[in-house]
Amino acid sequence: MENLQKAVLRFRDERDWGKFHNAKDLAISLNLEAGELLENFQWKSNEEAIETKFQQIKEEIADVMIYLLLLCDRLDINLEEAVHSKLVKNAEKYPVVKSFGRNAKYTEL
Amino acid sequence: MENLQKAVLRFRDERDWGKFHNAKDLAISLNLEAGELLENFQWKSNEEAIETKFQQIKEEIADVMIYLLLLCDRLDINLEEAVHSKLVKNAEKYPVVKSFGRNAKYTEL
Amino acid sequence: MENLQKAVLRFRDERDWGKFHNAKDLAISLNLEAGELLENFQWKSNEEAIETKFQQIKEEIADVMIYLLLLCDRLDINLEEAVHSKLVKNAEKYPVVKSFGRNAKYTEL
Amino acid sequence: MENLQKAVLRFRDERDWGKFHNAKDLAISLNLEAGELLENFQWKSNEEAIETKFQQIKEEIADVMIYLLLLCDRLDINLEEAVHSKLVKNAEKYPVVKSFGRNAKYTEL
Repeated sequence: MENLQKAVLRFRDERDWGKFHNAKDLAISLNLEAGELLENFQWKSNEEAIETKFQQIKEEIADVMIYLLLLCDRLDINLEEAVHSKLVKNAEKYPVVKSFGRNAKYTEL
Repeated sequence: MENLQKAVLRFRDERDWGKFHNAKDLAISLNLEAGELLENFQWKSNEEAIETKFQQIKEEIADVMIYLLLLCDRLDINLEEAVHSKLVKNAEKYPVVKSFGRNAKYTEL
Repeated sequence: MENLQKAVLRFRDERDWGKFHNAKDLAISLNLEAGELLENFQWKSNEEAIETKFQQIKEEIADVMIYLLLLCDRLDINLEEAVHSKLVKNAEKYPVVKSFGRNAKYTEL
Repeated sequence: MENLQKAVLRFRDERDWGKFHNAKDLAISLNLEAGELLENFQWKSNEEAIETKFQQIKEEIADVMIYLLLLCDRLDINLEEAVHSKLVKNAEKYPVVKSFGRNAKYTEL
């Protein structure tokens, strides 16, 4: 992950884009990339989308990740540590015994 | 990254949630988590949001990453490789010489 | 509003697009259009965005409205009535005396 | 529509919320509401969502409309006129003869 983040930051710094990257605008961009990802599934079944748009889906996933890494850099967040902590918290919200095989929100368990 | 993804998949499988996880719905969820991240910046300046909502921002970043890893698992995408390939492609869209210090979209460069 | 919705439905029906318009996909499209609206504000202050992107902002607002009307048609929802009912409900969540001049979420009032 | 917008503006003004309502933050809020609408379809088929979440869907549609009206007020946009203009433009992008019965984007027609 560290090397990946370095590659992303190098891309940013070669273009002197860091000066635009406040967290609020990065969060906006992350939303826009997530939307572009979803656009590949618009008007299609899951299967059709995967069959006809796989390459675009992969590229948009990458763009979401790039903004995630930029945001973590800007906020000094260790992404791996953040995910591990969140999994602990999610495990409390969704105990195995209550949520096994169910798609209900924790407020509805 | 590999260990991180394993932790996320273990969380999913302990709850038998894999059966809900088609790529289209995961892409929807990723969008919703990106929205929850952005919600922390709503009606606030960048600085206010970071000062008052840092922990929530960190947690939502983690949730976005969790869905990204789930989506990559479902689609058999190697996330690191996808980012490296996309950086190469983005470098063609945004040549250093044209995009240095500019926030224009590639279509407007 | 009724005439507006009729114009939108005529546009749809002339293209025989009704067959694609299930509510889930319309909700996805509405999100994508909302994202395109927001894109005009990316990397810009509110003022810069309005100054340089006013026409695009206006067009994306229209696209959001178009999907809203298509969705209401599909679900047999009267949009005006829905807004009036929601204002009543929001007024309970945000009593004037508690929320006057404050940007807090109702859960934090 | 005019009366509807007046009702929305009265709600805003009774709470003195106009001071928070710059267009960029309203566009963010509109995205968040669109996300809350979509959340009702998460992990569900179109039919299941309509059956189990109809009331919530209706309320989120109303919230999207409320932000649309607030945004139009802030930017002095006549929403009806904007939709009519956009339909004209969309008709050029999607000529009936090329797009009849097809779900392709105009760039792919």
